[in-house]
Amino acid sequence: MEKELLPKVAHYDMMADPFRCDFSKHLTVGQLGNALLNAADFHSDDREFGMNYLHTIHRTWVLSRLCIELEAMPRAYDPFFIETWCDSAMKYFTSRNFKIGSPTGSVYGYGRSIWAMIDTEMRQPADILAIHDGLLTAYLDRDYPCPIASPSRVKLGDRLELVRELDTFYSDVDINGHINSVKYIDHVLDLWPLSWYESHRLRRIDVAYVAESYQGDLLRLYRQPLSDDGLAFGVSVCKVREGEEQREVCRCELRFE
Amino acid sequence: MEKELLPKVAHYDMMADPFRCDFSKHLTVGQLGNALLNAADFHSDDREFGMNYLHTIHRTWVLSRLCIELEAMPRAYDPFFIETWCDSAMKYFTSRNFKIGSPTGSVYGYGRSIWAMIDTEMRQPADILAIHDGLLTAYLDRDYPCPIASPSRVKLGDRLELVRELDTFYSDVDINGHINSVKYIDHVLDLWPLSWYESHRLRRIDVAYVAESYQGDLLRLYRQPLSDDGLAFGVSVCKVREGEEQREVCRCELRFE
Repeated sequence: MEKELLPKVAHYDMMADPFRCDFSKHLTVGQLGNALLNAADFHSDDREFGMNYLHTIHRTWVLSRLCIELEAMPRAYDPFFIETWCDSAMKYFTSRNFKIGSPTGSVYGYGRSIWAMIDTEMRQPADILAIHDGLLTAYLDRDYPCPIASPSRVKLGDRLELVRELDTFYSDVDINGHINSVKYIDHVLDLWPLSWYESHRLRRIDVAYVAESYQGDLLRLYRQPLSDDGLAFGVSVCKVREGEEQREVCRCELRFE
Repeated sequence: MEKELLPKVAHYDMMADPFRCDFSKHLTVGQLGNALLNAADFHSDDREFGMNYLHTIHRTWVLSRLCIELEAMPRAYDPFFIETWCDSAMKYFTSRNFKIGSPTGSVYGYGRSIWAMIDTEMRQPADILAIHDGLLTAYLDRDYPCPIASPSRVKLGDRLELVRELDTFYSDVDINGHINSVKYIDHVLDLWPLSWYESHRLRRIDVAYVAESYQGDLLRLYRQPLSDDGLAFGVSVCKVREGEEQREVCRCELRFE
């Protein structure tokens, strides 16, 4: 018996809870990032290719790239929604888009992401199109607009400067057992003090995830300016584990305004 | 024209979003703590004595004590609810209780808290009963059960040992402009490694808040055992600011099982 398909684009109503907001009374980028990951998981879980199902066949999704571009941020108590959908799928990668909007019709911003699937026992890439006979392809929506550039590969130059070392703790780890993808974004945004955010707003962030890190790893954050106007930066996050060589875990490109 | 009163006990339906869960696939204590603060604010905001209104008359709520006692934690994707109500109010303090339950009828746990109101310009205690002619007293429910002990004053002995120093960053600061009350709980729980949480669960935490800290303050965490079974601990969190004497910001008592 064939099951009826759900809509390709999923819509989740949310609210900017006051205790998920920063000093400026706007939702934080980290909380929005976690809301995007939750929306991605709800969308795929409802459609039978979420972590819940994948864990039963020792597979899981791995975030490879993420970019978020924001015109504005919901203020405390503002209702907002996240829409998410997949717009392409290949054997080893699928791309998923996000729209962050207000019930009044305005748009806060958009996101784009690229995901791989891995076999959690072999730690090897797994075939996305083998899941439920390629069910994901029935859910692709190539027409729903996402008017922002694709996530950058984030090429950093040679002017990187070590700006912070961080230990990793229990609260950095998420449901997958490794440091949460969005926690890196929190740590990177924390490179600027509160006073910076009194006069600057993050307009766009691109993150390229390279490796996973685990509780106990030491993180080293390297930063470099990427523009002459002092508003664009690159950050490389590396992990140091005893007895191993230092290794990059992710690279970010940030544009403030 | 008299407005009709809302129910004394407010009920908020929530869900354990997977990316607010820890490696064990249970909601984290920090995320639950933030959900309690949000519920407290929704309850008081809907009843016209929340931060939203208080900020217009340069007043705000200040959390003075908090305890949470947990039989269990919601698992990822589990729906749960928070009920909250005030059960006493005096000129300078009000007490607010929490019930954390499941739609199936089971109870995850309870919380109790004590709040003061301050004048944000004078930094002095403000009269709670002066707000809307003592409106809060019309909302007291002394009968709704909250079967856990009141928040402890948290008396720590002289065996405290400095176990960690932490810088404070943009992401530690909440909508009130100072370090978020629940962030201290995150930092305290991070004193134990992931491996501790593989075999231990927090059963109860009591926090006594003494002073506020701000982004840029250095935090020093001191810990001492409080029982012979190795499951109860006291933690004192102190702030160090340039040119000032070290000062305690909060004290916690934790009981694991």
